[in-house]
Formats: sequence, structure tokens, C-alpha cells
Amino acid sequence: MATALVVLGAGMGTRMNSDLPKVLHQIAGAPMLVHAMKAGAALDPAKTVIVAGHGAADVEKAAKAYDPDTDVVIQDQQLGTAHAVAQAQSALEGFEGDVIVLYGDTPFIQAETLAAMTAARLTHDIVVLGFVADDPGRYGRLIVKDDQLDRIVEFKDADEAERAVALCNSGVVAADARTLFDLIDAVGNDNAAGEYYLTDIIGIARSKGLSATVVTCAEAETLGVNSRSELARAEALFQRRARSSALDDGVTLIAPDTVYFAHDTAVRRDSIIEPHVVFGPGVTVESGAHIKAFSHLEGCHVSRGGVIGPYARLRPGAELSEGVKIGNFVEIKNAAIAEGAKVNHLSYIGDAAIGARSNVGAGTITCNYDGVFKHKTQIGADAFIGSNTMLVAPVSIGDQAMTASGSVITRDVPQGDLAVGRARQENKGGFAIRMFDRLRALKAKGKS
Amino acid sequence: MATALVVLGAGMGTRMNSDLPKVLHQIAGAPMLVHAMKAGAALDPAKTVIVAGHGAADVEKAAKAYDPDTDVVIQDQQLGTAHAVAQAQSALEGFEGDVIVLYGDTPFIQAETLAAMTAARLTHDIVVLGFVADDPGRYGRLIVKDDQLDRIVEFKDADEAERAVALCNSGVVAADARTLFDLIDAVGNDNAAGEYYLTDIIGIARSKGLSATVVTCAEAETLGVNSRSELARAEALFQRRARSSALDDGVTLIAPDTVYFAHDTAVRRDSIIEPHVVFGPGVTVESGAHIKAFSHLEGCHVSRGGVIGPYARLRPGAELSEGVKIGNFVEIKNAAIAEGAKVNHLSYIGDAAIGARSNVGAGTITCNYDGVFKHKTQIGADAFIGSNTMLVAPVSIGDQAMTASGSVITRDVPQGDLAVGRARQENKGGFAIRMFDRLRALKAKGKS
Amino acid sequence: MATALVVLGAGMGTRMNSDLPKVLHQIAGAPMLVHAMKAGAALDPAKTVIVAGHGAADVEKAAKAYDPDTDVVIQDQQLGTAHAVAQAQSALEGFEGDVIVLYGDTPFIQAETLAAMTAARLTHDIVVLGFVADDPGRYGRLIVKDDQLDRIVEFKDADEAERAVALCNSGVVAADARTLFDLIDAVGNDNAAGEYYLTDIIGIARSKGLSATVVTCAEAETLGVNSRSELARAEALFQRRARSSALDDGVTLIAPDTVYFAHDTAVRRDSIIEPHVVFGPGVTVESGAHIKAFSHLEGCHVSRGGVIGPYARLRPGAELSEGVKIGNFVEIKNAAIAEGAKVNHLSYIGDAAIGARSNVGAGTITCNYDGVFKHKTQIGADAFIGSNTMLVAPVSIGDQAMTASGSVITRDVPQGDLAVGRARQENKGGFAIRMFDRLRALKAKGKS
Repeated sequence: MATALVVLGAGMGTRMNSDLPKVLHQIAGAPMLVHAMKAGAALDPAKTVIVAGHGAADVEKAAKAYDPDTDVVIQDQQLGTAHAVAQAQSALEGFEGDVIVLYGDTPFIQAETLAAMTAARLTHDIVVLGFVADDPGRYGRLIVKDDQLDRIVEFKDADEAERAVALCNSGVVAADARTLFDLIDAVGNDNAAGEYYLTDIIGIARSKGLSATVVTCAEAETLGVNSRSELARAEALFQRRARSSALDDGVTLIAPDTVYFAHDTAVRRDSIIEPHVVFGPGVTVESGAHIKAFSHLEGCHVSRGGVIGPYARLRPGAELSEGVKIGNFVEIKNAAIAEGAKVNHLSYIGDAAIGARSNVGAGTITCNYDGVFKHKTQIGADAFIGSNTMLVAPVSIGDQAMTASGSVITRDVPQGDLAVGRARQENKGGFAIRMFDRLRALKAKGKS
Repeated sequence: MATALVVLGAGMGTRMNSDLPKVLHQIAGAPMLVHAMKAGAALDPAKTVIVAGHGAADVEKAAKAYDPDTDVVIQDQQLGTAHAVAQAQSALEGFEGDVIVLYGDTPFIQAETLAAMTAARLTHDIVVLGFVADDPGRYGRLIVKDDQLDRIVEFKDADEAERAVALCNSGVVAADARTLFDLIDAVGNDNAAGEYYLTDIIGIARSKGLSATVVTCAEAETLGVNSRSELARAEALFQRRARSSALDDGVTLIAPDTVYFAHDTAVRRDSIIEPHVVFGPGVTVESGAHIKAFSHLEGCHVSRGGVIGPYARLRPGAELSEGVKIGNFVEIKNAAIAEGAKVNHLSYIGDAAIGARSNVGAGTITCNYDGVFKHKTQIGADAFIGSNTMLVAPVSIGDQAMTASGSVITRDVPQGDLAVGRARQENKGGFAIRMFDRLRALKAKGKS
Repeated sequence: MATALVVLGAGMGTRMNSDLPKVLHQIAGAPMLVHAMKAGAALDPAKTVIVAGHGAADVEKAAKAYDPDTDVVIQDQQLGTAHAVAQAQSALEGFEGDVIVLYGDTPFIQAETLAAMTAARLTHDIVVLGFVADDPGRYGRLIVKDDQLDRIVEFKDADEAERAVALCNSGVVAADARTLFDLIDAVGNDNAAGEYYLTDIIGIARSKGLSATVVTCAEAETLGVNSRSELARAEALFQRRARSSALDDGVTLIAPDTVYFAHDTAVRRDSIIEPHVVFGPGVTVESGAHIKAFSHLEGCHVSRGGVIGPYARLRPGAELSEGVKIGNFVEIKNAAIAEGAKVNHLSYIGDAAIGARSNVGAGTITCNYDGVFKHKTQIGADAFIGSNTMLVAPVSIGDQAMTASGSVITRDVPQGDLAVGRARQENKGGFAIRMFDRLRALKAKGKS
């Protein structure tokens, strides 16, 4: 059966105290909205509709960056969750199948949980995702009667017996599209807030003789984010799981609490991650690599046996082949580094390709930017780039070629050549002593 | 009514195991003594007197660095808290008003708490700051009788009923100056330690018919520091509060536990602080700035939309205008960077001014020090500083001017000019291959 | 009495999910095997025998790196702990005295505990190390009867009364060598796993009328490591203790949880360690040194009053005399830096000696590698190395000599001389404006 996702993301998020729409606040390098979309994506949905409101243009951009086929509809006034879902109806015109309603500020729902809801739909008209709360507090309660979900009661409307129920409402709902929108049409706003509540559809459905059931998940999956503190706690929860899963995969984390993963970081078995390492999105680290302390990786690929850091920064497009060494205070961006090549100290390598086994000396810089355009640097295999070489791109260094330290290289260097571009040294006898004597005398005068 | 602070800071702090006077050990980048003085400063005191002893010269320096009008008196022999306060009497000669006694190793007393004590003074002769202890242990107990603080009993002198009291003594006292010193005159040292205890003034006051009362605060405010472990715990407490308060102010802290604030850090709403960031004293970060991982900021100002790091070090006097970008392995010191300017990689900018929208290439260094004097570098607007430019100060680069990469700039560059200071490149045919052949042959010989 | 250590290290460690032998996984920069050997080393053993199996060659290498006199024997098939110990018999041929059996995956046994076992051997034939478990769970139980250790019962073989015993077996055993191997000969493998269990020797010994007793230690000492998670927990335990012990020694750790020590780090009183600092093996930091945030030290020595970092990397062989300053983005390797010398910014100093009070400018690099050999750089006292000086080793700079910034120094500079090796600057009038106009025009065309 075809599935469509409706993800609610219109809310202001007043308690976030932010100009950024709430669902665009990030966890592990991805907007919360995208976390919700990713969970839903495992169902291979035929349609995904985001209900945006506050900051809708930015929300649309983020949603489409993740999935260009996403539809975004606008909820101008925020009149409740049923009203929000209703905005998606036009975008689902003609769609036949199930709708699952997700929330852009509830980033931890697991794909397996949604699959369980889909399975439960085979036997019930409506499926609600619930959880047994440690402390049910003010959550809405799921009231089950005769093996059916009978109704959802808001805490403030619940009587004592209902409040004693620990089975709480996550808000996530699955139903046939037509059924869902019919039920929503019947929802009223005759309540204190004057809002249309999605929870009301259960009572209405039951009164119409439709069946409803509950699928449960761990409470942590339903964690919602309403403030920066809750965002920080959600990030911490994500990181705890990511670290634990890396350890289970046979990765050594010397100090797991100091390593930050992105939502899509992949680190293979027998890699070692030292303390204080940060992963941005888009990183793959192959088996047996060693990421040393204080390294920062983003959008890059480290192959088997790579040794990175300490203090290495790999930026998007850094493609490191087997056994590459990137040392301290080195930045690599949009560059392919072939097997066994080394860039060990204080260098900037951007928009470049470096051949196998080449050694790039300390202080080397690819001068890739002329103020308007970016240009490419090519270095062959077995080349030796002397310390503090400026490679003024576009420029190419041949295999086995060498540059003298301190050279500015503006023209290509053929294979096996040595390129020198520096002035001859001259020693001026006694000059340093005389100069410092003069400077110190000046200083003494200044003070007297 | 005028207020004077007397801050006790003479103690050795034996358990600190340090040559540094205890009250100069720091929390969040400020000596504990200064934390106590800051709390008192909110009362706008007419006089502040520090009672120093161990390391008095250093204590005086630290106290006057925070407030040059501070008086420092010396307690040569440490004969108890009453004796310590007595040393302040001469410095308060002629002062009329209230004295509040604070402790240089008790850094968390809040200004609001002291204000409450001042208010309570309107109705009572003596006000003592107390707290209800979770575990009263060996604290002195405040014994209240008939709505008056009757006496303070040291734990070892307390009977069972007194030990059952959970209201404990913080040591902080407020009283009229004349009353206080009269009472202290009456304190004896007829006890096991042979010391003059400030706590004795309550019993004496009550026996003279003076009134006394207790103002209470949270136990955490009265936290004292006696060892490095306790210092670390106090720092952790400070940081926990600072992080929580930043989150409440609408700052995103991705990993709050890895961010360290100074006592005076100000970060505005909708800024993002990535993991592993350290703030030294004197930092303001405006709204919407993004401080990336592994950055270190001290004595600097980041304006709206600034993007800092990763691995950026901003030192005192770094003044960054709106939208400035400071990238990895870059150090900025005593430099004004105008709107939209960029220093993205591996640079040292010290004693400089950089104009709007200028781009400073990787590896650029302001050579500001000639071994004796420091000199200034001026860069205009829309300038383009090529990679690895040495700017030998004093030197000035005009608007829209450019330097070729690898140039040493010793003379001013007029507006719109290109300055080149580098040798021409020469390629020596086959030289690299021959040289490496020779070196490898040498090595082989060395091994055989 | 002579002592021999037998350290079992043959296990696969399947749950580690690793190609590396389990006992070579590291805690605090040393293999677990070495931690066990270090504890035993305090007994000054006459012989140390490692029983290796999985990855035996690597295990041997690690063991001999720590103690070249170590014997390594191979257990080809892993037929139980008694079988493992039996492999050591030939290596102990002729040895007379006590054998203590340790485990290469149990890194926290304290030297004092082993000394207590040795002492207990004076009165008993066999001494077993036990611990009172918080939650005895599935540990083997030590059954004491009439003041003697009667037997060790595996959990699965224990009856209810035996399971109620909280005294558990660590596996560590001490006995006279001849006794031990005789008992092991008598151990059978008539059990479900078909293995020879070392624990069986107690029952056999008692049935032969030998005496046996238990020495107890804290449960934490017996912590074994079987997975990466447990390895991370063991590391955390080590770090907690190391931090606490540094604090007790009078070291200020501003943020103890972010500082990582190696197994042999020595930091003296009144040093300050800022947040986010990592120590590799072999570091000594003398009194009053200040290690700033984001520093990484390994195999180096920092003398009194040294100021290191932030972002300083000290590598093996960095020998810093009193009052040396190493600043940000600076790497020091195999270099002696004399009193009061400074390397403040963005430099690489390798294979070098720097004289007292010399100042090394930003961006300085010792070009120590010619692609085959490493060469040495000598800098005298009171020298001034200008920014971005390339020191092409072997090269020597005299006392009070100076290099101009941006110079490539290939020949020695005599005392007091100024060496200059750079091209003259030329300003090309209006060139920058014309060039950018052209580039921008090109770009505009490209877009149209």
C-alpha cells in the first residue's frame, strides 16, 4: 500500500527564543525536520508533505535540500494540529493509500516504529503511536477499551482514573488518507483554546464504528524539543546512541563523551578515534584509520590506514586514499590525496590533486583563489614539495618533481625537475647587533 | 545607608597545596576574591577593605586590578575571623554605615542575597546569612529563639538538640560598623584553638539586648573552596549555571558540557556555539554569530553574523565587525577587522586594521615585532592580500590594492597597486631525480 | 623469595570485534598487557612470561618493548586457563620461587595488592585474589571454610547457598612454582566446555592437605575488558583516578573531565592545565607551568614556568627549559628550547636546538627533511628569527644573529649578522584594479 508522510512544521517554537523556525534547529548536523523525514523515508513514501508556517521559505529550502520531491504547504494561521494536517489535503489530491502524520520537532522516531504502525494498519482503521511514560505528567492519555483505542484524553480533561493510565499519546497517527481527511472535517474547535485537535479524530472514528489501535515505542523516541535546553538534551541523546553504536561496531573511542558524530557519520571497524574529535555531515572513515585528537572532519572520505591529525581539518571534498597522512594544523578542501601521500604540517590544500607517495612540506599553500575565480593545483606521484611552497593555481607539478622550500611556483614544473623561486641569501656582518643596539637605545630614550 | 565591604582573604589555604594565596585561585577566569568583590559591588559600597595575609602583595594587586579604590589591610598573624575583621577597623576610620563581612574563598554569594541582608538590617542590629544544609555535618548551627538569632554554636560545642538544627552559618554578617567593631572588641580567645571567632559576636550582642536575625540563601551560594578538587567542583558549578543561562537566552550550545565560559562572557540570542569552545575573560558575541568547534576567544568582540573557527584564536583587542569570517589556525590580536573581511587560513594578524570586504590569504603574517618595538599594519577596504604575504610593519596597504603571494611587503602599497616582492621561478631540468638518486645511494651506503 | 609473573594474553577477545589482539588494546596510551606487567613489575620479578596466542607476534613485540627480558610462550589452542598457565612451565624451567598468574585484559590490579598476596604466601600454600562484588552476578564464588579457601565454584555449578556468597574470584593466583605446576597437571577437562580451569587447583590442593587463603581488593581493581564499551569504561576509570590524583598533588585542572592523561604523565604542583588538553605517553610538566587549552603533549618535558598553548603540539623529544613559551599552532619535535626562548605562532620546529631568550617569529619552519635524510638546525642565544623564515637544515644561526622575515636560510649565519634572502618589493601602479576589473568582467561573461 502506498504511503504518504505529512510532517507538521509550522509552529513558532516561542520557547526556542529564536528567529529560526523551530524545526530547522539542528541535531547532529541536520535540521530536526530532516530527522523526521529520514525516519519516514524508510517507508519509501509516494508523497511527502511538509506543513510549514513560521519561516516557511527556509523550511521549504531545508526540506527540498533533503528531498527535492517534497511538497510544502502553508498553514498561515496556527489553529491546531487537525487544522495543520488539513492543509496537506490539496497536496494529496488523488493520492490513495495511507497517511502518516509526523512532527518536525520530534526527531527520534525510528523507521522500525513506523513500519510497525504500517503493519498494524492491516487490521485497524487508525493506528496511533503511544508510549508508556516513566512520569506521564501532563501528556495526553490513550484510553484502551475492549482491545480498541477508545479515545485520546488531554490531561486537563482527564478524570482521576484516566490520569492513572501511563499509556501516553505521541501524536503520530496512521490512517487511510480519505478516512483521515473525512475525520478531520468532523473535528470541531469548541474548546478553551479554540483549536482543532487531531486527537479528536479517535473519538469520532470510534463513534462511526471504525477500529483503532495503539503501537508503542520507547518513550525516548517521542522526545519533543521546545527549548534550547531540550535541543541540547536531544543532541546528547543522539550522541550517546551514536557513540554506543560505534563501539558496538568495533570502533575504539578513547573518550566517547568528547566525540561528536553527525547524523550520517560512518566509521568502520578497528578505527581509532582519539578524544575531542568533531564530525560534520558526510564523513566516511574506513577500517583501521586513526583519527587523532582535536580533528574536525566534514564531507570527506578517509580510506584504510589513514592517519589524521591531531588538529587536522578535512573539509568537503577531501578524498583520502589508503595510508594517507594528514598532520597538524592542516586544512584539506576539495582535494584528492592519493595512496601514501603526506601533508604533515601547517598547510592549506584546496582544489587540488596530489599523487601517490608525494610529500608536501610544512607551510605549503595552494593559492587557489585569485579574488574572483578558484583554480586547481595538480601534483604528480613521488613529488617533493619543499616547505613553504606557494602553488599559484592553476599549476601542475610533475611526477618525481621537487620544489625548493620558500618558492613561489607560478609555472608548471615538468617531471623530475627542481623548481626554485627564491632570492639568494646574504649575510650582513654585525648588522643585527647594531640594529638591536639602536632599537634598545631608542626604547631607553623613550622611557627616560 | 552607606555600606562597606570587608572581604577576608588572609588564609593560607593549606589544603590547596599551592604557593598562590588561596583567594587568587580562579573560577571562570577571575580570582575567587574578585567573585566575592563582584557580588558586593552590586551594593555600591562606599569602601571595600580586603584583609590579606599570605601572599598579601599579590592579593592587593588582584583586588586593585578589579577596583583601584580597594583598601588592603594586613593580618600578619591569623588569630581567627574576629581578629581578621578587626584589622579592617583602621581602614574604616570615620566610615559611618553598615559593614558586610564576606569571604574571599566563597565566590558564589549572589548580589540579591546581600541586598536581602541589607534590607533585614532595617529591622535588626545584626544580620547573619544562613542556609538550610542538605547534610549539616560539621557546620556551625544558627540557633533561633523567639524570632531572634540567639547564638551561633560551633558543631563541636553543640549538644544533640542543637545538632539537630539544619540552619547553618555561612559566616557572612552585616551590622553597623560601630556596633560590629564594639562587639568584636568584646570577643575573647578562651577556646581550644586560642582564636577570636566572629561567630561569638551574636551571643555578645544578644546579651547586650541587640537584635539579630537570619537571612537564608541556597546552600550552593555558600560553597567554600579549600582544595583543588573543591575548586574544580566550584568551576563546574559556575559553568553549569552559565551554560544553562546561555541556553535560556536563546543561544544554541550543541554540546554545553564542552563549552567553558568566563565570569563575564556575553553571548547574544541566536548565536551558535559548537562543541569544544573556550572563552577567556572579556568576550562579547553578538546575535547570529557562529563560533565553530575548537575556538578560543578572549578579550574580543564578535559582531552580528560573524563566523569564527574552527580553530580560531581571538586574543585581546580583536574587534570584529559584522559578517567577518575568521577561519582555521588563525590568530587575531589587537586588530580591528571591518565588515565582511575574511582571514580564512593559517594567519597571524596582530596590531592591525583591516578594511571592509578585504580578503587576507592563507599564511599571511603581520610582522609586528622588530625584537624591541611593536608596529602597526593598515590594510584598506577591498584589498586582496595574497597567500603567505609578510607585512613588515609599520606598513600600509591601500584600498583595492593587492599583494602577490609569497611577497615580503616592507613599503606602503598605494591604492589599487599590485605589490610583488618575490624571486622568479626557475626549473632545473632533471635535477630532482638526480638529487634523490644521489641521496638514496648515500642512504643505502650508510646502511650497508 | 623470587617471584615470576605469568601473564595470560592468548584470548581472541571476540567481543572486541577487532583484528588487534585483545591485550594490545590501549588504556591511557599503553596496551592493557603493559598495565598488567607494570603492576607485577613492582614485585621485581625474576622472570616474566607472557602466554600469547591470537596475534602472538604483536603481543611479543609490545611485551618486549616494555621489558626486553620478557619471555613469550605460545598457546596454540585455547583449552582453558590451566592449560594457558601450563604453557609457561618450560620457560620457568629451573626457576625456584613463587608464580603469580595475572591477566592481560585486567589492567587495574595494584602493586600493593600483589604485595599483599606475596605476604600471604608466607603462611599459605596458595593465595587467590578475591573481591566482594556489589552485584556478584555470574562471577565464580570463593568458598571459605574453617579459615581456609576451600574451593572456587563457577556460578553455573553453584548451589543457592554458594550463590549467596559475595566473595568472588578475580582469577589472580599466587603459589610456589613447583606446587602450581603439579596442581595444574592434576586438573582435568571433564566439563561441558572441555576446558582445563585454573580454578580447579584449589579443590585439588585442599584435598592434598595444602593450605589456601584469599586476599581481597576493591572490585574496581579486578575490572576486566571484553568489548570496546568496557574498554571505554576502563579508560574513563583510569582518567578519573589520574585527574583526582593530579588535583591532590596540587595541580589546577580547570575542567578535569576534558583532560586526558597517559599512564605515565607527571605534572607537578602549582601547574595549571586548562580545558581540553591531551597527554600522550612520556610527559613531565614541572612546577608552575601553564598548559593552555587545546594543547597536545607527548614524549616531552616542560620546565618550571613554561607557558604552552593554546593549540600547541609538543612531540617526542621536545625538551623545554625554564620559562619557555610555545604559542598557538606550533609543533615542536625532537628539539631543545633553552630558557626563556619563545616560539609563539604557526611554526614547525623539528630536529633543532634553540638558544636562550631567542625569539622565533611566526611562520618559521625548520626544513629538516630533504626527502631522504633528516638534518639539524642550530639557533644560538638571543637570536631573532624573522617571521616566515625557512631554515634549510643543516644550518646554524649564531648568537644575537637575525634573519629577515620571509628569508630562506641555506647557509650558516655568523654571530650578530643579519641574514636576508628575499626579493625586493615592486609596486605596479593600478595593476590590482585593472586585474580585478578584467577578472570580474570574465566572470560576468561566464554567467551571461
